[in-house]
Amino acid sequence: MAPVTERPDEGVAAPQRSALAATWRFLVGRPLRASETSKERISPLEGLPALSLDALTSVAYGPEAILVVLAVAGARHLSAIFPVTVAIVVLLVVLVVSYRQVIDAYPAGGGAYAVSRDNFGPKVSQVAAASLIVDYTLTVAVSIAAGVGQLVSAFPELSSATVPICLGILALITVLNLRGLGDSARAFLLPTVVFIVGLLAIIAVGLIHPLDPHLHQPGRSLIATSGIEALSVLLVLKAFAAGCSALTGVEAIANGVPLFRDPPVVRAKRTEVLLGSILGVMLLGLAELALKFHIGPRTSQTVLSQIMGAAVGRHWAFYTVSLAITVVLALAANTSFGGLPILASLLARDNYVPHIFALRGERQVFANGIWVLAIMAGALLVAVGGNTQSLIPLFAIGVFIGFTLAQSGLVVHWWRQRPARWRQKAAVNALGAVVTGASTIIFLITKFTGGAWVVVIAVPTFILLFRRIEAYYRRTAQELGLGTLPERPTKEHTLVVVPVTNISRLVAHSLSQAKSLSEEVVAVTVVKETVEAARQTPSVGPPDLESQWERWDPGVPLMVLRTEYASVVDPIVEFIDARRCEGTEIVVLIPVVVPSRLRYRILHNQMDHVMSAALRHRSDVVVARVPFSLEYPPPKQAHARREG
Amino acid sequence: MAPVTERPDEGVAAPQRSALAATWRFLVGRPLRASETSKERISPLEGLPALSLDALTSVAYGPEAILVVLAVAGARHLSAIFPVTVAIVVLLVVLVVSYRQVIDAYPAGGGAYAVSRDNFGPKVSQVAAASLIVDYTLTVAVSIAAGVGQLVSAFPELSSATVPICLGILALITVLNLRGLGDSARAFLLPTVVFIVGLLAIIAVGLIHPLDPHLHQPGRSLIATSGIEALSVLLVLKAFAAGCSALTGVEAIANGVPLFRDPPVVRAKRTEVLLGSILGVMLLGLAELALKFHIGPRTSQTVLSQIMGAAVGRHWAFYTVSLAITVVLALAANTSFGGLPILASLLARDNYVPHIFALRGERQVFANGIWVLAIMAGALLVAVGGNTQSLIPLFAIGVFIGFTLAQSGLVVHWWRQRPARWRQKAAVNALGAVVTGASTIIFLITKFTGGAWVVVIAVPTFILLFRRIEAYYRRTAQELGLGTLPERPTKEHTLVVVPVTNISRLVAHSLSQAKSLSEEVVAVTVVKETVEAARQTPSVGPPDLESQWERWDPGVPLMVLRTEYASVVDPIVEFIDARRCEGTEIVVLIPVVVPSRLRYRILHNQMDHVMSAALRHRSDVVVARVPFSLEYPPPKQAHARREG
Repeated sequence: MAPVTERPDEGVAAPQRSALAATWRFLVGRPLRASETSKERISPLEGLPALSLDALTSVAYGPEAILVVLAVAGARHLSAIFPVTVAIVVLLVVLVVSYRQVIDAYPAGGGAYAVSRDNFGPKVSQVAAASLIVDYTLTVAVSIAAGVGQLVSAFPELSSATVPICLGILALITVLNLRGLGDSARAFLLPTVVFIVGLLAIIAVGLIHPLDPHLHQPGRSLIATSGIEALSVLLVLKAFAAGCSALTGVEAIANGVPLFRDPPVVRAKRTEVLLGSILGVMLLGLAELALKFHIGPRTSQTVLSQIMGAAVGRHWAFYTVSLAITVVLALAANTSFGGLPILASLLARDNYVPHIFALRGERQVFANGIWVLAIMAGALLVAVGGNTQSLIPLFAIGVFIGFTLAQSGLVVHWWRQRPARWRQKAAVNALGAVVTGASTIIFLITKFTGGAWVVVIAVPTFILLFRRIEAYYRRTAQELGLGTLPERPTKEHTLVVVPVTNISRLVAHSLSQAKSLSEEVVAVTVVKETVEAARQTPSVGPPDLESQWERWDPGVPLMVLRTEYASVVDPIVEFIDARRCEGTEIVVLIPVVVPSRLRYRILHNQMDHVMSAALRHRSDVVVARVPFSLEYPPPKQAHARREG
Repeated sequence: MAPVTERPDEGVAAPQRSALAATWRFLVGRPLRASETSKERISPLEGLPALSLDALTSVAYGPEAILVVLAVAGARHLSAIFPVTVAIVVLLVVLVVSYRQVIDAYPAGGGAYAVSRDNFGPKVSQVAAASLIVDYTLTVAVSIAAGVGQLVSAFPELSSATVPICLGILALITVLNLRGLGDSARAFLLPTVVFIVGLLAIIAVGLIHPLDPHLHQPGRSLIATSGIEALSVLLVLKAFAAGCSALTGVEAIANGVPLFRDPPVVRAKRTEVLLGSILGVMLLGLAELALKFHIGPRTSQTVLSQIMGAAVGRHWAFYTVSLAITVVLALAANTSFGGLPILASLLARDNYVPHIFALRGERQVFANGIWVLAIMAGALLVAVGGNTQSLIPLFAIGVFIGFTLAQSGLVVHWWRQRPARWRQKAAVNALGAVVTGASTIIFLITKFTGGAWVVVIAVPTFILLFRRIEAYYRRTAQELGLGTLPERPTKEHTLVVVPVTNISRLVAHSLSQAKSLSEEVVAVTVVKETVEAARQTPSVGPPDLESQWERWDPGVPLMVLRTEYASVVDPIVEFIDARRCEGTEIVVLIPVVVPSRLRYRILHNQMDHVMSAALRHRSDVVVARVPFSLEYPPPKQAHARREG
């Protein structure tokens, strides 16, 4: 048994690395050992930046989503924001209590996928997985769009570059995650503290003594002047559904219990309460301030930006907290990059997605999942032009499906386990399941035409895909005989075929390889019958190669194949087919020149390309390439003439 | 020795052909034997469509090019077209006489490249080759642009689609040439006759009794109202240089002498005279008519279209001949597709361009040359927006360099051979060389800033490329020992390495192949040390695979490589390196699943992709893939459970 391998020096390992590859290596960093990536465990305070940013930062788009809905009923009815926010905060309390129990029940991390797989089996867990994929993608897109919206509110001159800025931030997050720096909780602490403390302070100033309550807000008001719609029950439900986007991310702490310091369960539950308190206070405070300053949605200012401006004026505090909000929103997008690739790797292990998602990259991260998430989120951002409000109707549905499945899974869990006070615990989770389930139905009804249909199509599509992939892998495993011991390998007679076009060191090298592999080797060459040759002497050969071969006498017969067609490959394939029919195993050795520089490749190896293409899909022939290195440009000396 | 191979039935030969490939096959046709492409020899009359269209159709842009230059001197000086045209016709006579001698001297086909290679050696011939490449590309672009210009003059509503129509015609010509139908002289006869007879008749009608001499011409006049420039010597020279674009293609008959019926030389010389007469008459007639009808350049009407309209009115004759002109111009572009690919194949044989240009495609045509020409011409057409006049300054320079080299080569030829009356013959060609050489210099001076600098850069760039490629091939041939007999191949000890991740029929199959190839086979597997495993029991193996391997006992040792890095490839490469250092030849057999449908490929073969990528540039390791076919979807029966 070999010892643990050591990585040799970088430069030696990859002598032919291109400039592109070198730039990429610079961006992403050297390969890491698994042991180099181990993280310090986190405290409850560090739990906020590491696991709660998605939830906390939703104050940047939740209240606005409510006001956008209410605005169609006219300025008079904007005051409905307060009761709607109270309802959302009540839901938040239910969720926090309920998720504290999830933490108790699943101290190893209780994502909706794991909980529902454990309690409901694979079929329901596929629903959870599909919802989570949609949710993670939307979280990235919404967070980045909201962050850039906040930035553009503070600096309106950037507004024309919204989409490029969104994509730039997405690219930055992607590269950081490919480096494996996606979860540096400590680095995230400072902006998180500035954001929480700053925003709470601004809310306090606004409630007690606003500095600039009559601030002229830039942009055009989007409030319907005479009320397009009456304030109906449906409109209030719509506002509630839109505002529930503020609750996304509450589940993240329960997923990440093992990251906490000992005792992790206690610390995680403490963080959950901390998160719930801060988020509840912020939501209620912002709703009150929106009422107080008569804030409504505007074209070029987010609601949060308007509230902050009225509370403290557009001065240093406003700009500092605005920037902090942009940063933490980008970091909130970052948390999805921690989630989706791990989910994809779990799904790959369960054969629901291609196994490539279970492969770790050089930096020990699940790079394929990172790429797919970045591409999906980037496409969404481009599709909606970086506009948060276009994404809100799609958002929260996936999250609330996950909430509902996790809560109801917990009910089953308590019922099966029956620990002390299990009835009480089950009742709490049942309440959570009912409330979140009801909310999900409200979302589907109120948001369906506004974009929720996308989710209604996407989730079953993902589930169908999971099932088809799983069925394929199941059948393949059977065909490959995985889990059984196949017949022992046997030695068979093999013919090695070497296509040649001339006599050279490359051919000699290839024939040496061929002779080393089998007793029976044949070199084949294709001669094209030209019209002229066919007319005059039908069987005139290539006197050069055949007679030279005889002179050389390499100990390998040369088979000359004649054709009237242009393809040099087809005659060789036919020759192989004929020998295959006789029951011989065939190995084709293709001599390949390896030039010293990539750009010289176009000058070589036509035979390699056409033979490889012709034999690529053949399962009865082994194709091998025998490489031969060239050195060019040569050391400055002999300038030999070509003799052939 | 094997007999001439026969092509099996189509369907059997390519069972996995995609829909795309099938569509392409439909467009381009089945593979052809060389003997199926042999052509009937042509008569002098057929020689006009086959070899002279480039020259004849230049009446569509030559006179216009003269008028565009003269128009800057104002309407008064447009009459200078007549003396300028007379000078061009004199040059035409010199060229016809001179090229009749080229036909005598090179009955096997006397292209500028062949003649200058024969008489001046390789360096000068490279100049000719580079000029010809530029010339062929420009002929395609100019002819198509002029043809579409004629079409748009007749049907002005098409004018907004100029570039798409140009590219559509180019695509059509490309596909026809890839089919190998590029030189169907007989099919081209009808439009050529309609064009020649129709245009000569229109000229006659216009000279004798014009039907609509005061026709209102559409578009805006481009004549400078008060004369921006005086009629200087330089301007007249510029007009001459621009008009000489009408002489391009005069050399084509001399290139194609072997295509004529016996006696080819006599028939080719007769065709040359026929071409010269028709072209001269047309040019003089059109110049006279342009004067008579006071024709100048206009925005949406070609000069030829204006003349035709004034001569016979915009009636059926006008439309018929206009369409015939568009068709023959497209066919003129087509003649370049006959020329450049053959030139490229000659250059490839002389090692000046990559050898792939010497490969015939399935239809026996030089497909790579056709593609390159189509791409270069398409890029030119897009770059100038399908406007003929933007291309005229680039045009003719390449042609006239070729003229000059061919004529002066002939002088050398006569001087060396000294046949009867050689002095007289040399004098004729010397005159031709001097006149065309002087014209080339006039072009360079007068057109340099107008676009000729592109040619001045392109020609030396091509020459430099030829030289570097030739040097590379020369050196490579030396390194490969081409032309010498290398050492005889020897048998060496070889270790076959089979990377495995599990035990399956695929692995068994690969190990069978490996055992058939060498006495020494080793299976390698990579085990990743996770952080947890490393912390607890540092050398914990994959108990499953190792113990199962022992139970299976395939007669091949299993080497377990441990790594802390994510890459499974690097440990295997290091293992190979270690054995290479011991002097062992290594063959790596990668087990590869071949799924029944292409779309399943993403579900398989991660090991194949990463191993192949890692070893692609290694010249000391032979990499082979052992394919194993899967059948999926399965026949509707057993629904086995995965056991592994």
